[in-house]
Amino acid sequence: PRARDLGLSIGRFPPGPLNAITDVGQVAVGHVTLIEGDRTRTGATAILPHPGNVFADRPRAGLSVLNGFGKFAGATQVQELGEIETPILLTNTLAVGRGVEALVRHTLAQPGNAHVTSINAVVGETNDGRLNDIRAARPTVEEMRAALANARPGPVTEGAVGAGTGTISFGLKGGIGTASRRVGEHMQGVLVQANFGGTLRVDGRPVAGVPEADADGSIVLVIATDAPLSSRNLTRLASRSFAGLARIGSALSNGSGDYALVFSVGPGAPLGNDACSPLFEAVIEAAEEAILNALLMAGDMDGYDARHDRPNRVAGLKL
Amino acid sequence: PRARDLGLSIGRFPPGPLNAITDVGQVAVGHVTLIEGDRTRTGATAILPHPGNVFADRPRAGLSVLNGFGKFAGATQVQELGEIETPILLTNTLAVGRGVEALVRHTLAQPGNAHVTSINAVVGETNDGRLNDIRAARPTVEEMRAALANARPGPVTEGAVGAGTGTISFGLKGGIGTASRRVGEHMQGVLVQANFGGTLRVDGRPVAGVPEADADGSIVLVIATDAPLSSRNLTRLASRSFAGLARIGSALSNGSGDYALVFSVGPGAPLGNDACSPLFEAVIEAAEEAILNALLMAGDMDGYDARHDRPNRVAGLKL
Amino acid sequence: PRARDLGLSIGRFPPGPLNAITDVGQVAVGHVTLIEGDRTRTGATAILPHPGNVFADRPRAGLSVLNGFGKFAGATQVQELGEIETPILLTNTLAVGRGVEALVRHTLAQPGNAHVTSINAVVGETNDGRLNDIRAARPTVEEMRAALANARPGPVTEGAVGAGTGTISFGLKGGIGTASRRVGEHMQGVLVQANFGGTLRVDGRPVAGVPEADADGSIVLVIATDAPLSSRNLTRLASRSFAGLARIGSALSNGSGDYALVFSVGPGAPLGNDACSPLFEAVIEAAEEAILNALLMAGDMDGYDARHDRPNRVAGLKL
Amino acid sequence: PRARDLGLSIGRFPPGPLNAITDVGQVAVGHVTLIEGDRTRTGATAILPHPGNVFADRPRAGLSVLNGFGKFAGATQVQELGEIETPILLTNTLAVGRGVEALVRHTLAQPGNAHVTSINAVVGETNDGRLNDIRAARPTVEEMRAALANARPGPVTEGAVGAGTGTISFGLKGGIGTASRRVGEHMQGVLVQANFGGTLRVDGRPVAGVPEADADGSIVLVIATDAPLSSRNLTRLASRSFAGLARIGSALSNGSGDYALVFSVGPGAPLGNDACSPLFEAVIEAAEEAILNALLMAGDMDGYDARHDRPNRVAGLKL
Repeated sequence: PRARDLGLSIGRFPPGPLNAITDVGQVAVGHVTLIEGDRTRTGATAILPHPGNVFADRPRAGLSVLNGFGKFAGATQVQELGEIETPILLTNTLAVGRGVEALVRHTLAQPGNAHVTSINAVVGETNDGRLNDIRAARPTVEEMRAALANARPGPVTEGAVGAGTGTISFGLKGGIGTASRRVGEHMQGVLVQANFGGTLRVDGRPVAGVPEADADGSIVLVIATDAPLSSRNLTRLASRSFAGLARIGSALSNGSGDYALVFSVGPGAPLGNDACSPLFEAVIEAAEEAILNALLMAGDMDGYDARHDRPNRVAGLKL
Repeated sequence: PRARDLGLSIGRFPPGPLNAITDVGQVAVGHVTLIEGDRTRTGATAILPHPGNVFADRPRAGLSVLNGFGKFAGATQVQELGEIETPILLTNTLAVGRGVEALVRHTLAQPGNAHVTSINAVVGETNDGRLNDIRAARPTVEEMRAALANARPGPVTEGAVGAGTGTISFGLKGGIGTASRRVGEHMQGVLVQANFGGTLRVDGRPVAGVPEADADGSIVLVIATDAPLSSRNLTRLASRSFAGLARIGSALSNGSGDYALVFSVGPGAPLGNDACSPLFEAVIEAAEEAILNALLMAGDMDGYDARHDRPNRVAGLKL
Repeated sequence: PRARDLGLSIGRFPPGPLNAITDVGQVAVGHVTLIEGDRTRTGATAILPHPGNVFADRPRAGLSVLNGFGKFAGATQVQELGEIETPILLTNTLAVGRGVEALVRHTLAQPGNAHVTSINAVVGETNDGRLNDIRAARPTVEEMRAALANARPGPVTEGAVGAGTGTISFGLKGGIGTASRRVGEHMQGVLVQANFGGTLRVDGRPVAGVPEADADGSIVLVIATDAPLSSRNLTRLASRSFAGLARIGSALSNGSGDYALVFSVGPGAPLGNDACSPLFEAVIEAAEEAILNALLMAGDMDGYDARHDRPNRVAGLKL
Repeated sequence: PRARDLGLSIGRFPPGPLNAITDVGQVAVGHVTLIEGDRTRTGATAILPHPGNVFADRPRAGLSVLNGFGKFAGATQVQELGEIETPILLTNTLAVGRGVEALVRHTLAQPGNAHVTSINAVVGETNDGRLNDIRAARPTVEEMRAALANARPGPVTEGAVGAGTGTISFGLKGGIGTASRRVGEHMQGVLVQANFGGTLRVDGRPVAGVPEADADGSIVLVIATDAPLSSRNLTRLASRSFAGLARIGSALSNGSGDYALVFSVGPGAPLGNDACSPLFEAVIEAAEEAILNALLMAGDMDGYDARHDRPNRVAGLKL
């Protein structure tokens, strides 16, 4: 179940109709989920900011890095130019190179891009090597492109799917989760690839029967907003999402590579600094609820621990 | 009462003997508290990293800026050189210039500094203008120097004292608070000047009867550790303290200038990246508890709202 | 003489009518110059972005820090909010606190600011302690305010004036210098407080008879543009000014605190990233020529070396 | 010819025996050069910090980003952890994904890495699409691995080789260049992939007959030092290399993605801040001379302009 199916609603702003990142403009999400044999538990998740040619029509964007111990591709250009020029792919740690290649091939192949010679692919990752044979070079470039091709507006499949297929959070099965918030006339959504740990709190309350202090892993948060913000204020907005991560109990360990990428689909002149406060607060709430949804929708999973070369089983969160 | 007097203990690491920043090495704290007439509710708080000549014997240091909407003096040099060369002063927003002057005069006057011609004064601030006539140029340079002269090891006076005399948090009276944590052989302490807002949570639980969503203000966190860390890892440590801020309910609003300065009194070769995780987790706990102590120790306060030119009264937190 | 009086013109863009920062909009500059007895060789320079209330009408701004070994006040807020809310003061290293106080008093005193309770004073500095008794607390707060009051549009006095009264560059007398460039319909100007060293090059050529490898000191560059740029692109523009510093031969030593603050007086929607290239190139040229003007206009100076407690004499550059 | 063959020596520090990055410790360099038919003019260059297992024995490292308009892989982790864990690959803009994959495969295949599940591949790039059919997916993953396998200590082939095969600088043929400097007991070397523009200066002097103001392109500088520096001071060292770029005439245009990665092979406790100044100055000189060597060694080249879909011919610099 999602958090709201259990009567859990985080914060004070109302969610959008789908309570998902796809509530924002025409944002679309696609997964490729690879569950094969005893060892393959991985995948990729694509977020498309709009249905057009993203290279030609670039959303303003920002990136906040809470802990840069990760392999996020495209970071410096997003920060320098304040925009993205490809969709966003999430996948596993050792697949980032193939994700970059997939976005390059995807972009070169789109109508209107026949003379494009420079592409800044945006690829986030977390490490699914506790349930997946991460050394085995999956997903492939073509499988990543399938995630892009699969992207659709509407409800988002959550839990152990796409880039969340093999992730672990708080020693429980993690995954993909999403949530959204309406802030006045604006809509903001968050999608997370949850693979981090610490001491789990559900809306501030401790949870019984959870593995203690499992702090491995990382998180990528992708945030969409239709509020027109400068890249500077988008970056500030992104940084607030880490408060949702803190509230659910992340230990923010050395090894937890934590990234928040945000893009705006809102046209027009940027709002001023003062207008940001409710947008900041809402992104905290949505991030916390998106993580909770990832955990609640994930279920149990058997797989392969590549670091220790042995089978592994991870339980899903039950409240 | 402090949080532990009410049976509230945040997190899983044990506090030091005083549960205060003064548990770390020979750290000393001094206040000057100015409560005069109907309008003056301000002051300064000094943190001395050690009893010697700080300019000659410089602690490694780091600064993390969550929201730079503040007047923190000395920021760029701390980040560039990875050290502090003066004690730290906290005061009100419009007193930073006088705080810099006070630290310059203090440093020039110390034995051994007769030829010093360059001093990087470190001064943090939050805005006490909701209870204090902040336009009235108090504390003076001499009053700031008194805070430095007053610094002592041992228990730290908390609540509406020093730089916390006129601060407000969550619409309640804020102030100075402190806490510490033992992490293996190391000790870490946090002292906060709490003047921010949001929706208060006490160890994750909502609190009845608190003003709603008062998100004005800012916070400065000063962190001391005896773990020998590189300036890079000190900066990472500082950034984790914001998770304590998030957990207690900060809205992280546009206007909330949030800074964490950390220094190490631990000699010797820096610990590696991997050794940081428990230190990171402990600073989250200590920050949250220090803020809670600031609120619980503050009491009610009458004063003057300088922005609206009228008297004001703010209640202290009662649990 | 200025560089162009000697037939030296740096780069390919034409200067404005005054070849000064005051070519941009209604920018005004004021100095207070303190030459007293054997020991006082210091001062302050004020740059006013426009003749109105800067707190009420805030120019977009950016700050680039090449070497943060300096005491620049106001840094974090400029970077966070992308604007300045006071004029800019330049002075000596130990006078920054008084400079902050002067800008606070100046701002509180302006019509319309009766309820202002938060002010981010912007104060840059370099160390004139090789010619000035920098420990002696000059300029005072009131002397700094005089620099603000003295600010005028029109030609800018250069050399050993204002904040450049006691500065040294390349072992020669440094000072204040300025230059401007027209870039299509836009005007950009640079004013420098030159106090750094290295191996001097004049338009790329070595200079005979100059002290060898004197690399002490620092520089502050203040840049004005009437191009409407986002704060992100203003920051990028500021960073390019360091190329002018590199070309004239700075050694970029550990001790050289090098800062570039930029503000825009251009109203309207920001230009795109692509439009920045000629603006970037022009700021390199103007920075190099401004530094050259500072050196050429400075003349010889007798004073007091505060670090070594002895008289000192520094020659001006003669070509 | 190299610069010194023409009597050109930049700066005041002496070069090492090879005047190459391979003067530092056991640093090795390998190229794969792809010149095929009318259209393929590309390649890759590998820099190995030492002959051992880099994942197991990680050099301290820093990264300075002057202009983040590039696709540099591995950036955030280098900055966060202050180390590299793979060799460095340089290649073309659209090959970065394949470069990441190559370093992942290379690292997984090394003895001792059987349980490695997380690898931060470091890949720099510039755009060779003015002479190379950059859209054609060369070099392949296997070709990149060949560059790693080819790496050798000793003299470095310069000019139109490896990642410099198709690059252009100042409208002339660019390429790979290197230089080194001895600083007391320490050795520092720089290797560049030169593909940027502006107005060329040779040791400060203008050059006749060069294309005017061709400012396209980017540069990656790889710096090796045997001075033991903290990652913070390595990052500061890296930033100084941009002064060499400025001196040779870069326009630092919007489109020029300029990156400097530095690693240290020096064991032991880091040197203090004060010890950095000569190291800073030497890296400026070595960077300028490495770029000059790249230009002088490149020769003429025919190829294919992928942006304009037509043949292209670019002349080499002749002095």
